[in-house]
Parts: sequence; structure tokens; C-alpha cells
Amino acid sequence: MLGSTHGTLTTDSRRARVIACGEHPGPAVHGRPADADDLDVSGRPLYAEVPDLDRFFRPGSVAVIGASDAEGRPNTGVTRQLVDWAGRVGARLHPVHPTRGTVFGLPCSASVADLPEQVDLAVLLVADPLPVIEQLSETKVKFAVAFASGFAETGEEGAAAQERLAAAVARSGLRLLGPNTNLNAFERFRDDLTGPSIALITQSGHQGRPVFALQENGVRLSHWAPTGNEADLETSDFLSYFAERPEVGAIACYVEGLKDGRSFLLAADRAARRGVPVVAVKVGRTETGARTAASHTGKLTGADEVVDAAMRQYGVLRVDGLDELQDTAALLARARPPQADGVVVYSISGGTGAHAADLATAAGLTLPTLSAAKQAELHRWIPAYLSVANPVDNGGHPVGDLRGRKIIDAILDDPAVGVLVCPITGPFPPLSDRLVRDLVDAAERTDKLVCVVWGSPVGTEPAYREVLLGSSRVATFRTLGNCLSAVRAYLGHHRFVRDYRSPFDEAPRTQSPSFRKARLLMRPGQQLSEHAAKQLLRAYGIRVPREQLVTSAAAAVRAAGLVGYPVVMKASGGQIAHKTELGLVKIGLTSASQVRDAYRELTDIARYEGVELDGVLVCQMVERGVEMVVGVTHDELFGPTVTVGLGGVLVEVLRDAAVRVPPFGEDQARDMLAELRGRALLDGVRGRPPADVEALVEVILRVQRMALELGEDIAELDINPLVVLPCGQGAVALDALAVCR
Amino acid sequence: MLGSTHGTLTTDSRRARVIACGEHPGPAVHGRPADADDLDVSGRPLYAEVPDLDRFFRPGSVAVIGASDAEGRPNTGVTRQLVDWAGRVGARLHPVHPTRGTVFGLPCSASVADLPEQVDLAVLLVADPLPVIEQLSETKVKFAVAFASGFAETGEEGAAAQERLAAAVARSGLRLLGPNTNLNAFERFRDDLTGPSIALITQSGHQGRPVFALQENGVRLSHWAPTGNEADLETSDFLSYFAERPEVGAIACYVEGLKDGRSFLLAADRAARRGVPVVAVKVGRTETGARTAASHTGKLTGADEVVDAAMRQYGVLRVDGLDELQDTAALLARARPPQADGVVVYSISGGTGAHAADLATAAGLTLPTLSAAKQAELHRWIPAYLSVANPVDNGGHPVGDLRGRKIIDAILDDPAVGVLVCPITGPFPPLSDRLVRDLVDAAERTDKLVCVVWGSPVGTEPAYREVLLGSSRVATFRTLGNCLSAVRAYLGHHRFVRDYRSPFDEAPRTQSPSFRKARLLMRPGQQLSEHAAKQLLRAYGIRVPREQLVTSAAAAVRAAGLVGYPVVMKASGGQIAHKTELGLVKIGLTSASQVRDAYRELTDIARYEGVELDGVLVCQMVERGVEMVVGVTHDELFGPTVTVGLGGVLVEVLRDAAVRVPPFGEDQARDMLAELRGRALLDGVRGRPPADVEALVEVILRVQRMALELGEDIAELDINPLVVLPCGQGAVALDALAVCR
Repeated sequence: MLGSTHGTLTTDSRRARVIACGEHPGPAVHGRPADADDLDVSGRPLYAEVPDLDRFFRPGSVAVIGASDAEGRPNTGVTRQLVDWAGRVGARLHPVHPTRGTVFGLPCSASVADLPEQVDLAVLLVADPLPVIEQLSETKVKFAVAFASGFAETGEEGAAAQERLAAAVARSGLRLLGPNTNLNAFERFRDDLTGPSIALITQSGHQGRPVFALQENGVRLSHWAPTGNEADLETSDFLSYFAERPEVGAIACYVEGLKDGRSFLLAADRAARRGVPVVAVKVGRTETGARTAASHTGKLTGADEVVDAAMRQYGVLRVDGLDELQDTAALLARARPPQADGVVVYSISGGTGAHAADLATAAGLTLPTLSAAKQAELHRWIPAYLSVANPVDNGGHPVGDLRGRKIIDAILDDPAVGVLVCPITGPFPPLSDRLVRDLVDAAERTDKLVCVVWGSPVGTEPAYREVLLGSSRVATFRTLGNCLSAVRAYLGHHRFVRDYRSPFDEAPRTQSPSFRKARLLMRPGQQLSEHAAKQLLRAYGIRVPREQLVTSAAAAVRAAGLVGYPVVMKASGGQIAHKTELGLVKIGLTSASQVRDAYRELTDIARYEGVELDGVLVCQMVERGVEMVVGVTHDELFGPTVTVGLGGVLVEVLRDAAVRVPPFGEDQARDMLAELRGRALLDGVRGRPPADVEALVEVILRVQRMALELGEDIAELDINPLVVLPCGQGAVALDALAVCR
Repeated sequence: MLGSTHGTLTTDSRRARVIACGEHPGPAVHGRPADADDLDVSGRPLYAEVPDLDRFFRPGSVAVIGASDAEGRPNTGVTRQLVDWAGRVGARLHPVHPTRGTVFGLPCSASVADLPEQVDLAVLLVADPLPVIEQLSETKVKFAVAFASGFAETGEEGAAAQERLAAAVARSGLRLLGPNTNLNAFERFRDDLTGPSIALITQSGHQGRPVFALQENGVRLSHWAPTGNEADLETSDFLSYFAERPEVGAIACYVEGLKDGRSFLLAADRAARRGVPVVAVKVGRTETGARTAASHTGKLTGADEVVDAAMRQYGVLRVDGLDELQDTAALLARARPPQADGVVVYSISGGTGAHAADLATAAGLTLPTLSAAKQAELHRWIPAYLSVANPVDNGGHPVGDLRGRKIIDAILDDPAVGVLVCPITGPFPPLSDRLVRDLVDAAERTDKLVCVVWGSPVGTEPAYREVLLGSSRVATFRTLGNCLSAVRAYLGHHRFVRDYRSPFDEAPRTQSPSFRKARLLMRPGQQLSEHAAKQLLRAYGIRVPREQLVTSAAAAVRAAGLVGYPVVMKASGGQIAHKTELGLVKIGLTSASQVRDAYRELTDIARYEGVELDGVLVCQMVERGVEMVVGVTHDELFGPTVTVGLGGVLVEVLRDAAVRVPPFGEDQARDMLAELRGRALLDGVRGRPPADVEALVEVILRVQRMALELGEDIAELDINPLVVLPCGQGAVALDALAVCR
């Protein structure tokens, strides 16, 4: 199921989008309504539809189909929770049941047709939702929720049933949550908490539970979307909807798989444009995880390095643990934008300060040395023998009196400081109670971020549960590690948003002139010869060596004359791999006689090895440079992707490569190079001149164009090696492999 | 201070050991008393002295010098705590004060000389401990503790005062804890907890606080050694003492710096021999941390990659956060040895299982697929559509009744299973209360490790605080990440102990015949010529190319004849670096005339560049192989270390190298190679034959021998490149750099 035909998938997803955009807008759609213009050259959409889910989360009226109040019936508990919830959100609830007169005292309709009013939301507590969906389609109900399980999560038969359900939903005009979902959307949310909230999207109710429980620690939660099997409404729909909600400060996601990569990226793009942080756990770091998740949800997990890159392209903050999900989302939802990137570690112990400063630096945070003036100011309250350069060690005693607050304010006043991190390793009430109180008060009076790490493993102390968790301005953590990674995510998010330009605005919508030339070279189902593959590259303006394809020794000599000595000669044919190993490459030929001999030798070897030749290539010899590999591969979730790596041993042995999902801009192409561990090679080592990085970036972008225009027709494209010459001299594709679909 | 003269340091440490071993045994010393035989060829000790600290932690009588019960005096609080502590441990306490008659009702001695009995422990609450130490030396007191600060932690003057104090202590025959320490050793430990305990060593009281607080979560703590400035007793002394204590299940350390690397390794070796796990936070991951820690403690932090390697050599489990220190130490102290390495993830939700299995695999744990028979057994209680292959997903309901316990027992019965990990993402009493109870009961009846992750961010739930923390058999965590890294540490520790052989038992004690040859080549303070450096290698049996040093063109031609064509010619002299860049290397010379020309050219360039030559090397040309770098460098903490890396771009650009601290065995030499990211190069890539790894290992061990025997005389030694030929053909040092002290 996993490694399966991505081709079909991406095609499906394209049709699905078009249907979605054209025939079936369903409830009013926010933002630009999609139309033909809104597809890029690969036929993929450029804008996310944002379903209007207001009436889903706050319906005026709700029908509960299969409602019950009979003792011991499973539906009874569910109905009771729905009745409570409807009461809280002020919705009229209409039980539907063929035989009951009332349910929990509410008059019961015998069937959907008998409902007293048109309802916004229908909750289906029936084993087979399909017929009900068909009935609902007449009633113009906006939303339905199907709890029933036994669909894609159970295997092929269930998957087929789910497809029938999805088709019925598409016809009906309503939007469906589920099947195989639960009551999480209708939980009892705390309404006494204020400030920016976390909106939660999960593909597993249990996995969302700890984030929901953050409310008990004073963190506001406004929505929870348990997307279940996503027969219709999917993670991406809720992502783009939440990104538009004013009360939402951050979106937390637990994702096992996705229906369609593109719609996820478009949703993430909406969040990025609006500066709304998205923090996500995505299962699938390992093959075990991917397999288990796939069997659990029937969704696609995608190649993890591609998922990882795609998330980074759109600023989605990926974390591993649910604890990191909670800590990072809570911080990003509530903290105001940073005024500076500088982090100060403040502690009542030199040891704690040294340790925290060490790990903060290791986490990539910047700890500026405080100015002499600032240090002098701090030494008014802190003994002279203690270091206050950053980390600031106050030795303990000053926090017991008025000096404590003065020190905190002085640090927060420093324009170089954006974040104050104060690790408290344990409760020592004479000091820690006052310290905590001062931190909370100071945080109320600043826009800067104040983080406290409550290091006690107990966590029942009043200073922690009442004072720290009582403050929405102090970000409180239980481990230094989570604090530091959340702070890094916070600073990184705001840097990302500041510089963000949506690649979809600049994505090509129409085919380039290159495309017409290129498609003539395509040989469906075949591997192109090296010569043809290079012509393909040339069509897209990628430089290849001067070369001629010849079929006789005499022609070879003429070609060498035109190409210019010294020359390289290679056997050329559709099926040749490992030319060098087979001895089908001759380099540094300097005379007509050498060329003639080489021609004979190559054709002899080819005959002996039984490889079909379309001729012999006579190529210009290219001077030395940095060898790179640039290519296109397919991902089951995201379609064609672009990869760049360092050639030779680095990519072969260390897999030192970077990947991006089109469309992406020049900035991302440069980031790809920055990601390479061996990047220094491009800057020039052992006295070699720096390589022509500009030319390399240009090649990456041209290959992206090929991926966008030919993505569906090319199974595999590899330039190996691409020789990047010294600055100003360009880059040349010495060899290329292209396999057509 | 940091990058400073390691030479002196290691020499000091050697003398210090000898004094310690010979003249000043102090209190009876456990294990083999050290003597001249117990030094390795580098003059470093081979056995840790283990001071008998029984009377320090459980003294019969204690003197408190500077005792006070006057309101508001700082010493009063301290005295009270000491009186309470003495009462608890059953020690007679004698206050000492020149003027007071009694302190807290106890008769007060006017001076040390007037003490009513010989005391085991003297606690010094005086600003200047030096004179008191001198008085104490007459009283035969075994131990003293000095709280006074203002020593090495405050700079040079303080460091000098600390040296005077250390000298007085050495003369006195007593052992001193401090100065600049605190009351942590005399805290109120819970005595109602049973089972194996954690012993704690910290160089900062605050940093030890969270581990101490584990007692509130039911984890037993038996000792706390706050080593302060370590003028005498140091971290290593407590480490080897705790390793001998039967009640200690694990040793937890917070280390900022060390007095002497060797004594730490010897202490860690003792713990490894006895199978006692040591878990340590070591500050100094970054330069910031190292600098801050050094200024805080006046100790040495060492190069972090060397510290890291040294700890791994002796099985010390290094962690970053105090939370990891707590979780890992608590698990290792209490868990019984594993019966299998297999880990099973068990959950009440498919999502939770998939996520946990993903991260567990990513953490390097093995999740065996359960046998068909076992799966069939589990399906007696778990619905057929749920996967029980591992992760085991029970779908929830079974844990609500008798099936729950049956499932847990069935998993634990599986011989392939050593560890059960059950993540519980939140309290849902109908299910989680019973699940928790079943896990606790099952853990009581098995030797296998049962881990529970209580994922709720609240942590006040009875199921967690009372039931889970009430069990000493279940290892309970708050984050999945810490659970998985603790389990990895647990399985790794027991594997390590199983295979451990102390390198000190096989360390060379006497000089090899090579040493006499080698020392003749030494030129104190100078860089040796390439030729001399290669002779040094040859003296230690490391293969170098056939070569001759010549001083005339004619001699060069004769030499080429003897060496055999083709030859390489290189300018040879004491100060030449970057030969190749300067054009001072000529390769592939195939004839007498080429040799004659090359000789002239080389000497011309040398004259032009103004480099002093001792001649020209005519060398055998060596066939291609894998280029490695092997060398010796000095570490301020551990002395000479051995480094091996992949040559060329990998070591230059990626710093792909591994380091070890001598003495180490063949197994460690092989581990060094396994650590290299580019290791695959040695196995053969692109159809190249596998390299002669045996020969490479042999060279590493011979270089170690050089490090041990010449460590104090050689400032730097580098073989670059060492060409490792195909299997069975050996390894050849093509070039070498040696700088004498």
C-alpha cells in the first residue's frame, strides 16, 4: 500500500480538487473561490478552499440520529453528552429515533424527514451512515458527523465502503466529519480562560488528550477537531479554518497520515501568511511507525525526509513528543512577538546558570554578553564576585528581598534581551516563593517573554500550581530541554513569518516554451539515452558539454574536431547503467587515432556485453569543479520533489542530500545547499576556488520547472554529476539519467 | 586557563597519585593498596584508591567548630540542622566555641584541643579553615568539612589560598570535603523507603535538588556528596566509594569539571567492574558552558568530545537534562537485569501505539514482532481487527475488566520480551485506573521491566501520585522521550557490563623495545622532518613506504633504483608544511632523467621559498587504498588521546573522526571505526574491495602505545594519510608529522 503508484494518487488528488472547486462548493467558502486559473502548471491548486465551519462548531440546531436515553445503551451516554454540549453552546437539539416519543425529555422525530427545522449539524449514531447521508442531502443540512467505525482502518473492504460514503457525501452537498471519529469536538471546554487559544486537530482522540488537559494548567483551548478517517473533511480543512479564527493563537496537530499532500501545504501556507504558528507531531520517523500508522488510519505517511522538508518550507514546527507539542503550542499561542533574539539565563545558582547556558547554546540560542553598563547596574544588587555577564547568577540572597524584582526588571529592560529563562531546580520557599512571585509580576508589565523551568519532579507545590500556572504571561515548563526547544521554535517562527513569501503566488501557471521541445523527447515507459536525457536538460537551459552522437569511427574523428580536443567518448544507449564499470567511457583522448581506437573498443565492449547502442558520444572534456547530484523523484504524498546532494562519496556513503517540494523559490534553493553537511566544499577547501553557487541555484530552479511541467511524465530524473565550476564559470551536467512514465 | 599546559597538569596528577599512594593513605583504603607496580608505562596509576568514607557518612562523633545557637547568627541554622542530623544517625555531637558554655543545651568545648573524645568528623563553620585544619591534625580526626567560600571559585588569589589549604590537609592525614560546600550530605533522608538506592554526587547544591526530591516520588536516596571545590576529596573518591556500597543501585552525578581525568576513569572503572550504573550530567557541551563552569568551580572541563568518549569507554551514561538524570538513575537503580532486549509497546489506542512504536524505533530500541502463537493468545481478549503484533493495541475496552491483566501477563510471559512500555495519555478513570492497578500488580510478579508513561500534564491524579509512584517495581515517566532514552540506557548498560573487560588490567607497565629506538629520534621543542617522523613510526612497527633521504641528484637516481620505479620525490625538512601546495612533491616518476630533473626542481623551489632542507626523499609509490588519519593529541584533563578519522574531504569538511583515551583495548579501536559516519568506505563502495581493517586496528593500537610511552615528550603526532590497502595487504603511512615537546 505504501510504496504504491503515486502517479494515480496525485492524479486523483488533482481531480478531487477540481471537483471540490467546481461542482461542489458545499457551504460558503472563505477566501478566493477556486477556479481554473488557480491551478499551477502541474494541474495542482494554488489556493486552499477554507470551508466555513462556524456552524459546525457553533450550530443553531443539531439533530442526533439514533439518539437514546435507555439505560445501558451505548448511544445513551453519547446522547447525554451531546445534550449537555448543545445546552452550553445554545443549540436546539432534536433527537431522531423511529420509535421513541422523547429522549431526555426532548420531543423525538421519527426520521430525518420529520425534523421540525432545517438543522446545521446532524450527528449520526448509526452503524451504517450511508443511507442517512442520502436522506440528509434532501434536508439541506450543512454538516454531519459519523462515529461508526469499520471503514478504511479495517482494510480493503472497509476502504471500499468509505469510498461509497465519500461519493454520497460529495453528491449530497453537505460536509462530513468522520467516519470513525468521536466526541472530542463536543467536549466541555473551559470558558473562564481568556487570551489567545490553542486549536487542536488530532487523528487519534487519545493522542489529543494531554493537549486538552492543558486547560487544567490554565492554557485556553478553543477547538478540537478529531478528523477520524477523513472521508470528506480532512486535517487541512480544519488547519485553514483555524488559521482564520481571531481567537486562535496556535494550532496543535497530531498527524499520522494525510489524504493529500498539496492540500496540507496550501493550508499551512494560509497559516504562514497569517503568521499563525502550527505545531505538529507527525508519525513516520521510522518504517515501523509509518507501517503501524498506515494500518491504523488507512492514510499515507509519505517519505519522512520529504514530509520534514515540506513542513519546514511552510514553517510548520515539527516536534516528536506530545509533551513538546503541549509546551511549544502553549508558548507560541500566548507569547507576543520577540523584540530581540537575545536570551538571558537568570538563576540563583552558578551551577544552574552554567548548565542552562550550556544547553541553551547547544540548542542554537544566542546568549548575548550583557553590556558593561548593564552588568554594573546588576552589580548594584548582586555581589561583585558573581558573574552577571549572562548567565546572570545572583547567588541566591538577593531574591529574598526587594533586589530580586529590580534585577529581573533590569534584565528585561535591556534592548538586547528578548527572552528571560529562569530555571528553578526546586522549591526553597524563603527564596523560590518570592522569586516566582516577582517573575509573574514582572511578566505582567513587559511584552518580553519570561520562561520559568520548575525543576521539581513533584509538581504539587503551590508556587508552581497556583502562582506560575496561574499566570498567562509566564511560560512555565517542567524540563529545561522543552523550554529551550520551545524558545527556539518561538524565535524561529517569528523569523520565518517575517521573511515569508508564499511560493504559490509565484508558481508557474502556464507551460514554458521548453515544455514543447521537451515533450518531443519523451518515450513513454522507456529510459532515455544519455544523449536524449541531455537534450532534455538543454531544452530547459541547463548546460551540457558540447557533444555529438556518432555511428562510425570516421564520424567520431570529425566530431572530435568540432568538439575540440581533448575529448571524452561514451557508449550511448537506452539501457546502459554503470558505463564506467563496464569500460564504456574513455577520457582524455587527444588525437584522431586515439579517437578511432576508442570508437572500435567501445563498440566491441558493447557487442560483448550485449548492450544496444544508439551510437557513441563524443564529448568536450570539462575542467574540474565540485561534483553535485540534482534530481527529481516522486513522493506518494507530495508528487514530484527536487533533490540536491554532493556527488561522489558524500551522497553515496553519507546520503548528504536535501529535498524540497515544488513550488519553492530561490531562497529555498539556497537553503537546500545550506543544509548539506559537506556544504564547505562549495565554498572551496584546500585552496580550491569557491564554486559557482549562483549557477547551481539556477540549475536547481530549472530542474524544479521540469518537475512541475514533466512531473507526471517523468518517473525519474538524475543529473549525476553536475560539475559546478569556479565562480562565474557556471555548472555543466556531465551525465544524466531520465526514465519516462 | 583552559587551553593551558596539560603537560604540567598530567605530571602534577602523576605526582599527586604517587604521594596519595605512598606517603598518605589517610583512612584505611579499600581494594589493592597502590604501589610502584601499579603505575602504567606513562606513570599513571592503574587502581583507584577507595577512601573508606563510612565514618564520614555515619560518624560516631561529630565536632561542630563555630557552633552557635544565638538568634539571627547564620551559623545557628546550620548548627541546628547538624544537631538534628547527628540525632538521626546516632552520632554524639560536640559544639566547639571559645566563649559559649552550651549550644542547644549541649556542653561546648572552647577549642578543638578540649574536645571530650577523638571525633570522626569535624564540621568547620569558620571563615578561615586553615588554622583549624592544623589544630585538627593533632587530634587524629578522620574527616573535616569546610563550608567557607572565597577559594578557587573567586579567582587566582582564592586558588592560591585553596592550594595552601590542600597542602595543610595532605600534611594532616585527615580527608577534607570542601571548601565551598554545603549541608547537602547532612540532609534529612527518607528512611521509610526500601530497595536499591540512588547515591548522588554534585558540584552544585541546587543542581542536586531535583534528584533529592525524587524521594517524594518514592525513589530511595542513600547519600549526597556535595563536593564543592574538591581541595582534597573529589568526585572520583565518592564515585569509587559508592560503587562499593551494597545498598547503592545507581550513582547520579552532576559534574561541571574534574580535578584529574585519570582518577575519574579509575573510579568509573570500579563501578563498571561491579556493574553499578553511573549516570552523569557533564557541563561543557559548548564553549559558553565550559567557560561558565570553569569560572564557577575553578575546575577543568576538558574537550567535550574527549570527555564524551572517555565516559562511553567506561560505560558512564551521559545525559543532558536534570530530568533525564532523575529518570535514568531511578530506572537503573531499581530495575533488575533484562532477560531479553525486546521491547513491547502496549496501549489502549492505536494512535498512541503507532506514535510510541515510531519513537521507540527511532531511539534505537528493538520491537520484535510477536509470534503468531502469542498474537493468537492476545486475540482471545483483544478484538481480531486490532493489531497485536507489537505495538499491541487493545482498543480500550479490555482493560476495563479481567482481560486487562491477562493481556499484560501474556505479553510479559513472552521470552522475546524484556521490557513493556505502556503510554497512558491521560486519566480516564473507568479504564486508566484499572489499567494502572493491573500494571502495578503484574510488575510485582515479574522480574521484567514495566514502564508507564503518565502523559497528563497535570500530575495530581491519584492513579499517578498514589498508585504508580507508590510502586517501586513500575518505572513511571512523565514523557515518552525520557522513558525511551532511559530504557535504551538500561539495556545498553547491561550489555556493556556483560562484555566489560577493564583496560587497566592489560595496560602496559614497562617500556617496549621500540621506546629506546624512538627516544633517540626525539628533538625536544622541534618538529621532526618527515623522514624522522616516519622512522619514529617504523620504530613502533608501523609500515611506511620504502624510501631514502638523498642530498644529490645522483644519489636520488641510485635511491630510485633501490626503491623501485615509479617513485615519488618530496622535499624533506624540519619546518615544511603544505608540501603539495608549495609544489614540493613530485609523483609518478618513471625514469632516471625524470628523477634527476625532479631533484633539481625540488631544491630550486625550496631555495626560492627559503625552506631549510635536510634532503630529498625518494619514496616507493603506494597503490591506492582508503585514506585515513591517525594521530595523538593532548587533552588538559586526560593527557594524550588517540584520534582516527577518514582522510581527505571527510575529516577536513565533516570532521568525521573518533577519539579514545588510553589505555583501551582492541574492542575500543574497532568501536572507533564503527563511529565514523563514512565507515562504509572501509567496507568498500563503488565496487572497491573492502579495506584491511585488521591492519588499521593494529596501527591504532601501535599509535596508542606511542601515546602511552612518548605522551609526555610528543606535543603532536599525525599520520596523514595512512593508506589502508585492500584486505590482507596492510596499511602504509604515506606522510607523518611529529612535534616534540
